[in-house]
Amino acid sequence: MTAELLDGRATSARIREEVTAAVEQLKAEHGVVPGLATVLVGADPASKSYVGMKEKQCERAGMHAVGVHLPEEIGQADLLAELAKLNADPQIHGILLQLPLPEQLDEDEALAGIALEKDVDGFHPVNIARLTLQGVEPTFAPCMPLGCVELLDRYGVDIEGREAVVLGPSNIVGLPTAMLLLHRGATLTICHPHTQDLPGASRRADILVAAIDEPGMVKGDWVKPGAAVIDVGWSRVKDGTAEGGYRVVGNVDFEAVQAVAGHVTPVPGGTGPMTIAVLLQNTLLAAQRSISCG
Amino acid sequence: MTAELLDGRATSARIREEVTAAVEQLKAEHGVVPGLATVLVGADPASKSYVGMKEKQCERAGMHAVGVHLPEEIGQADLLAELAKLNADPQIHGILLQLPLPEQLDEDEALAGIALEKDVDGFHPVNIARLTLQGVEPTFAPCMPLGCVELLDRYGVDIEGREAVVLGPSNIVGLPTAMLLLHRGATLTICHPHTQDLPGASRRADILVAAIDEPGMVKGDWVKPGAAVIDVGWSRVKDGTAEGGYRVVGNVDFEAVQAVAGHVTPVPGGTGPMTIAVLLQNTLLAAQRSISCG
Repeated sequence: MTAELLDGRATSARIREEVTAAVEQLKAEHGVVPGLATVLVGADPASKSYVGMKEKQCERAGMHAVGVHLPEEIGQADLLAELAKLNADPQIHGILLQLPLPEQLDEDEALAGIALEKDVDGFHPVNIARLTLQGVEPTFAPCMPLGCVELLDRYGVDIEGREAVVLGPSNIVGLPTAMLLLHRGATLTICHPHTQDLPGASRRADILVAAIDEPGMVKGDWVKPGAAVIDVGWSRVKDGTAEGGYRVVGNVDFEAVQAVAGHVTPVPGGTGPMTIAVLLQNTLLAAQRSISCG
Repeated sequence: MTAELLDGRATSARIREEVTAAVEQLKAEHGVVPGLATVLVGADPASKSYVGMKEKQCERAGMHAVGVHLPEEIGQADLLAELAKLNADPQIHGILLQLPLPEQLDEDEALAGIALEKDVDGFHPVNIARLTLQGVEPTFAPCMPLGCVELLDRYGVDIEGREAVVLGPSNIVGLPTAMLLLHRGATLTICHPHTQDLPGASRRADILVAAIDEPGMVKGDWVKPGAAVIDVGWSRVKDGTAEGGYRVVGNVDFEAVQAVAGHVTPVPGGTGPMTIAVLLQNTLLAAQRSISCG
């Protein structure tokens, strides 16, 4: 058995096409161009390049992208004032505050300073609360978790009534993905760094989300035959035979897992590209909602 | 084997004594009397009696209790104004908004209208978000979930590294209890109404929390020998032989489970009395914090 690839590159390309077409329609019918503001505090090179990618993808999809670059030493009040300006700007439908923030800033309060209807990254505390509770929907769910679920949906992997196991309760991926899967009707297990039998817990999974930051940790015998395996890891490991002397790997021992699983995401080309595609979807949705409310 | 009782009545009596002594000390040393405001909208008899019990227990512990009774037909703005008054009142350290609210009111927004430092019931959306995420602590966690964990702690039941299974993802008990157990280092499973093998999932548990509303549903063979079983159910069932013609039962088939489990809560006298005891603890803590901040 060889697992079918959950191809994030192909799927995200399809989503970007869908979004581009919907943006065209929105312009033609309502004269509205969806706008995303990315807010970057400081000049961390990784964050800067990541924000740049988001802006570029927005523009390619016909959206309006504004990069707000704030000085490393900005105070809390000034950051909140910048967010308030974007909240009030009718050309901006989505606001993404790039995390982490410098130490002097209160991340919680800053995220709460984004208008709920523009919280396309889904980390406003009210949205995290709604993600946790049943019977209420966040205005937007965080992009990488939503991208994982979108991949499962597009490949016809059932969630309802199945066992989902999330390895690694991280705030950015593990926990939000867990809550999305639970509320889609999965029996949800979240493993903790103190979990004693990680392979045993993993083997229960019909859907296994590897969100621990350990290159190649999930082995073939951690996976139930036929399971869908989502790898959210991304690490560079040295490899003398590879171009540039390194290669990119995920949390999953890919070859071994591919021989057992029913579906598996490749790394690179799995959950990574889905994240920006979902951000575009969320921004489009924010713009569409602004019309029905306006 | 007969399980040891997780005796909520005795434990909550001990907590109330501890709180009463700490309240005395707070009065003597700082002249501060912890104050709780319970806010009840409308006149639902069950809610009214429940709020009344909370007020009475507060007063018995030497605290100041204010019952704010608002008319059934109150509007959102007026409710928020009442909460703002209590937020500003230095004699009030904790505010409990009795749920559910009448239909015309926005529960989410009302809960967010309580000052975080006075949110002793722990349902402010920021507190639910903090309960979900790792690395951040809510100002207060919801009382019944916290009471369940407190019972485990007081009886020396380890949480870290053990398997916890929560049956029933309710907003009031199941989900918050699940998040508390996860962040205390448990491997956490949450079952959903779509879970296909509830007995099988339950049998994994070292700590089993029965938060489904089904009298006697958890049978003896759902329980791993030696597990700790927390029953948050409370139902009246007809019983011709009992006084008044009914008796109170939980979600657990008590006799059968007691023969297998290591620890089990009785119903009544388990998690119920713990809830109000923890509310008193939270209110005391709010008053203590107000001194160190004031």
